Amino acid sequence: MTDMAELPSEPSGWLSDRELNHVRSELPLLYVNAIPVRINPRGELTHVGLLLRADDDGVISRAIVAGRVMYHETIRDALVRNLEKDLGAVALPRLPLDPAPFSVAEYFPTRGITKYHDSRQHAVALAFVVPVDGDCEPSQNALDIAWFTPEEAASEDIAGEMMGGQEALLKQALAFCGVLP
Amino acid sequence: MTDMAELPSEPSGWLSDRELNHVRSELPLLYVNAIPVRINPRGELTHVGLLLRADDDGVISRAIVAGRVMYHETIRDALVRNLEKDLGAVALPRLPLDPAPFSVAEYFPTRGITKYHDSRQHAVALAFVVPVDGDCEPSQNALDIAWFTPEEAASEDIAGEMMGGQEALLKQALAFCGVLP
Amino acid sequence: MTDMAELPSEPSGWLSDRELNHVRSELPLLYVNAIPVRINPRGELTHVGLLLRADDDGVISRAIVAGRVMYHETIRDALVRNLEKDLGAVALPRLPLDPAPFSVAEYFPTRGITKYHDSRQHAVALAFVVPVDGDCEPSQNALDIAWFTPEEAASEDIAGEMMGGQEALLKQALAFCGVLP
Amino acid sequence: MTDMAELPSEPSGWLSDRELNHVRSELPLLYVNAIPVRINPRGELTHVGLLLRADDDGVISRAIVAGRVMYHETIRDALVRNLEKDLGAVALPRLPLDPAPFSVAEYFPTRGITKYHDSRQHAVALAFVVPVDGDCEPSQNALDIAWFTPEEAASEDIAGEMMGGQEALLKQALAFCGVLP
Repeated sequence: MTDMAELPSEPSGWLSDRELNHVRSELPLLYVNAIPVRINPRGELTHVGLLLRADDDGVISRAIVAGRVMYHETIRDALVRNLEKDLGAVALPRLPLDPAPFSVAEYFPTRGITKYHDSRQHAVALAFVVPVDGDCEPSQNALDIAWFTPEEAASEDIAGEMMGGQEALLKQALAFCGVLP
Repeated sequence: MTDMAELPSEPSGWLSDRELNHVRSELPLLYVNAIPVRINPRGELTHVGLLLRADDDGVISRAIVAGRVMYHETIRDALVRNLEKDLGAVALPRLPLDPAPFSVAEYFPTRGITKYHDSRQHAVALAFVVPVDGDCEPSQNALDIAWFTPEEAASEDIAGEMMGGQEALLKQALAFCGVLP
Repeated sequence: MTDMAELPSEPSGWLSDRELNHVRSELPLLYVNAIPVRINPRGELTHVGLLLRADDDGVISRAIVAGRVMYHETIRDALVRNLEKDLGAVALPRLPLDPAPFSVAEYFPTRGITKYHDSRQHAVALAFVVPVDGDCEPSQNALDIAWFTPEEAASEDIAGEMMGGQEALLKQALAFCGVLP
Repeated sequence: MTDMAELPSEPSGWLSDRELNHVRSELPLLYVNAIPVRINPRGELTHVGLLLRADDDGVISRAIVAGRVMYHETIRDALVRNLEKDLGAVALPRLPLDPAPFSVAEYFPTRGITKYHDSRQHAVALAFVVPVDGDCEPSQNALDIAWFTPEEAASEDIAGEMMGGQEALLKQALAFCGVLP
């Protein structure tokens, strides 16, 4: 179980589960990854939010916000939808002005090709850092949302609790925001 | 005919044409867009390369390098393959150090949602500016590759010859390189 | 009068006017340039704010927020101070998470070396796009602050009212935010 | 001795040493920082180059390329001059297309304000990653130039040999290039 977190079920109606499974073996799927952060009044990152979840075997892991981009959906709309899916309706995310991702995470079904791995599929995730001002409520499939300082977020302890290489993306986000310890 | 240029046929073997047509109506497809440029010894952009092609109706248009990212292919490999497809084997492209695109072009089958349009599909293209040092030879489906100064590339004349909104991406590339007139 | 706008007097106490004039002929001076923008709830740029000022000869021009970085002042603090100087105390600027500028504008006392010109000095300005949520009140040296759509901001009319090459920086900011017409 | 490396003497003729010392206490000085890297044919960073130097007390340290931006000198010219000063005339650096730095390192004479420290001055350095293709020869003031893999460059050992916070800038550069371990 090292796959990209996708806590609640994704909206259906675009592809049946059977079709999606078929396509997953033939095309890279487009995702967004979002790292929710708290900032101070001067705009500096103070905390990073990570979702806590338990898989079917009871293994606990931490994850960033992730989800597919749907047919006829803009990246911006996919970000809004997936942030709301994972953080609730009153998180008040501030979407980036610059529509280019700070990084692109390429999750391969085979290990070792990139730093990212997803056993189910080849997924390419556009990654964004998103300040959130409001209250975050874990959705039904997440146990909790916890906030970490940059030092904590970059620690070996947290890295050991993340899956699919997301600890690398998290460190890259901290570096991008100038707060990698 | 305002679709993203894809001059030679794409490699098959991943999806049949019939399957690809089906998927095109259900998922966003991942593309790379590359803008080949000539630079001077000081690293400044001097010229932009545009492909000249004729469609089945004899309409002439100019296009940037574009192509799909295949299953189990990295963005970097997709860039190399599509640059070679459109510019030939001795173009000697210098791939970017930074694996994040300078922009993301979202081509929608419906006009007016973004600046980009592709009647066939919803395609999301990671866009890169790529200096090329070698000789560029148009592939079989392109009539020519022509090089333009930033002033020419940003002109109304050239914009009028481009399709699907690529003139906007071209201007954004010039701005990113600090040479938008 | 094509120099970078610096509407109210800068804080003294660091260098006397005589000393500053001397240094101006011997060192590049570090500036920040900030382009205030209004955004919609989805984070998209809707309007750009430009300062309107009259010089001693009554010539009207439009300018972006600009000012020096002082000794022992961080870039972030210089941004806050200069935004408050030009937009007032309740503009509520949202400083960027990423401390790297989207562009660097090099103002030379000699024309033609770069796109930027300042007859008084060699100034190097780190340029940022800054969303502002609050009310903007022109400071004493500005006549007004006016808000323009991306189309208006990129027009020849507005470009003709800007000085020192700032129209180029404005276009680059629009491109960076994905809204260059 | 934790100041920014500036191995050979800087060009004089702009400011006398006495004047420079005076200005250093009154203005932030503009610098460039460059991290020389080796890349493979696919454009991926394989090695980072660090200068080895000994100070007057025989303390050995590792440093990146650094130097002032002179009056009436462009950032690009300052990069070329300082790369040649520290790496020799045949290093064949590839200057970045994008003239915006990947980061800005603010060296303060007081510790703890930023991650960067320079006891002599307040220096603001625009930081770039620069691939070099040619042979690098240490200048007279450096003992050697050594090349490290990303893993080595991000190690505690190397961090312990760097001064003024440059180990933080090095890690940020690795993250920017997608190779932070």
